[in-house]
Amino acid sequence: MDGAGGICQRFDMLSPDSPTPPQDAATRRERPVGFTGSHLDRAGNPRRKPDWLAAQRSRTDARFLVLRELKALVDIAQKPAAIRWLDTAWADGHATLPCIFLGIDEDDIPHFALDGDAAPEDAGIAALHGETDKFIDVRSIAAQLIPEEAAILAQARSLIDWHQRHRFCAQCGSATEPAEAGYVRRCSNEVCKAQHFPRTDPVVIMLAVRRDEKTGEDMLLLGRQSRMPPGMYSALAGFMEPGESIEEAVRREIMEESGVITGAVRYLISQPWPFPSSLMIGCIAEALDPGITVDHDELEDARWFSRTEAAAMLERGKARLPTTETNPDEPPWMPPPLSLAHQIAKRWLAEK
Amino acid sequence: MDGAGGICQRFDMLSPDSPTPPQDAATRRERPVGFTGSHLDRAGNPRRKPDWLAAQRSRTDARFLVLRELKALVDIAQKPAAIRWLDTAWADGHATLPCIFLGIDEDDIPHFALDGDAAPEDAGIAALHGETDKFIDVRSIAAQLIPEEAAILAQARSLIDWHQRHRFCAQCGSATEPAEAGYVRRCSNEVCKAQHFPRTDPVVIMLAVRRDEKTGEDMLLLGRQSRMPPGMYSALAGFMEPGESIEEAVRREIMEESGVITGAVRYLISQPWPFPSSLMIGCIAEALDPGITVDHDELEDARWFSRTEAAAMLERGKARLPTTETNPDEPPWMPPPLSLAHQIAKRWLAEK
Repeated sequence: MDGAGGICQRFDMLSPDSPTPPQDAATRRERPVGFTGSHLDRAGNPRRKPDWLAAQRSRTDARFLVLRELKALVDIAQKPAAIRWLDTAWADGHATLPCIFLGIDEDDIPHFALDGDAAPEDAGIAALHGETDKFIDVRSIAAQLIPEEAAILAQARSLIDWHQRHRFCAQCGSATEPAEAGYVRRCSNEVCKAQHFPRTDPVVIMLAVRRDEKTGEDMLLLGRQSRMPPGMYSALAGFMEPGESIEEAVRREIMEESGVITGAVRYLISQPWPFPSSLMIGCIAEALDPGITVDHDELEDARWFSRTEAAAMLERGKARLPTTETNPDEPPWMPPPLSLAHQIAKRWLAEK
Repeated sequence: MDGAGGICQRFDMLSPDSPTPPQDAATRRERPVGFTGSHLDRAGNPRRKPDWLAAQRSRTDARFLVLRELKALVDIAQKPAAIRWLDTAWADGHATLPCIFLGIDEDDIPHFALDGDAAPEDAGIAALHGETDKFIDVRSIAAQLIPEEAAILAQARSLIDWHQRHRFCAQCGSATEPAEAGYVRRCSNEVCKAQHFPRTDPVVIMLAVRRDEKTGEDMLLLGRQSRMPPGMYSALAGFMEPGESIEEAVRREIMEESGVITGAVRYLISQPWPFPSSLMIGCIAEALDPGITVDHDELEDARWFSRTEAAAMLERGKARLPTTETNPDEPPWMPPPLSLAHQIAKRWLAEK
């Protein structure tokens, strides 16, 4: 079960911006992107067995993270910041909190997530928030954690959010109960007994690309929504629908949002995005007709940018902090490295 | 909106086994696989507007397909078999049936799906099933339809199944009502008002591959579940979990089911699988350690096969009919071309 632990660890401290270490072709894993790279083994089979799970839960060296209002308890005094893992004694003192199994690490230590929102009046949970330990929004803190801890928070946040919003059976309306270490909810109605599994919503996120006929320059298509900060442009994206492939969804979304017709689609990389439970699927699509007709229900603007402009926009995005002020005359910039939009643009630029 | 219609049509009659037509790089779409290639434009933005939708629904040239017990009405006398599209007059006579917008074709004709299960006693629906028009399981009939019609059935079946199993709000337990042409359900509880969207569950399906050190032959890993017909072996597969990338899910599933450790993962192709609502994501993973430890909760057997054996297994799978009898001594075979397991093995074999 922990056989792959050694391989995972090679990447533990790689941020999405670190250079790729030398490797041979077979062992070459993809470069990590935001919210990937967890070193935990989810133990998908044993976790279904109540005895095994109970034994893990009762270990004195087990580790627990707590979410409150879906924010994670993080020690911001450490550099990099780190999840504040609580111990078994603390968890035993809060035994009514819903508990989700996350996985076991390379030393066989089990890790769990606790849903602090189940006891909103609990002073013991509120008291955890202090000078250096703070409940922080997962998206805000992710880039300050080592990648494997951001990945663990993605897993925990998606699962706890799913439990909070699926207390009832979609099939019959009865109450549901968590089961199988937190990876199932079962309908309590003896007639229905439906089983429900966590949602993972696939989202295609992509760059349409083309070569400008006059200048010979490579161009890529970016758009902005009115709710984005001034100057920000990003890859087009949208939820997949039933009955389509990734490639079809890519062409449909580009067409719907920008009017651009695309042909060949190439997959690059994927990433979980736990707000609340997306799987971002990053692709490149070859434009066949560059004419843009912006769908103003979805976007405020969509534009072709040159590779030179895109490279500068990535740099501007990297340099920004969440607190960076923006003004309406801001030169255009792309989202920071945590986002797959940044990663697919960076990879496309590096290809040429 | 119908700008891509012409491009779609080039592939209308390509079965998953047709040779690839000559094309330049930018226009080269992926070769179609089962349940892909619909020629309908889903009109994702206009379909949200009630006036636009009502105008489509009232067109006299609109086309309607009916599902009953999730089976589709198909004319099996035609070669290839074809969806039995019903007309607006028929749909007007069954106006209480839930109606889902599928899309408009290149001639702007709107297509809809009707849920016949909402009126199980309706003799008019039962009477549709006759000598040549029959309600047939979508999986059984798919390979006998042109690909674009199989794709339309995938869309219709997934959506209708989703509506049938999501009549209640997972958040508060109240009744939900369909909205936005069938792509949303809204909670009827004024306090809750949650919106629910169709599920699409991403599944990784993959071949671990390696070169045998002694023979120099390329090998691929296949497994069988005890519920499969005798002799059938297929690609390993499993649902993605919250908080992981496609690549991580591939390595995890191979490890959990077979004990094989893999490194580099390469995406090949995807397909919707409407039983009920999977997105199959087909990948190749490089094995780092070929040792197999079968998880007998999941699989009856997992084995390395040589490329020569795999090629023969694909041929045996193609030659089989749903009615083909099997005996326990059957030589091993792989699923037919409709499945992504077949397609990723075929593509991998063609690469070398």
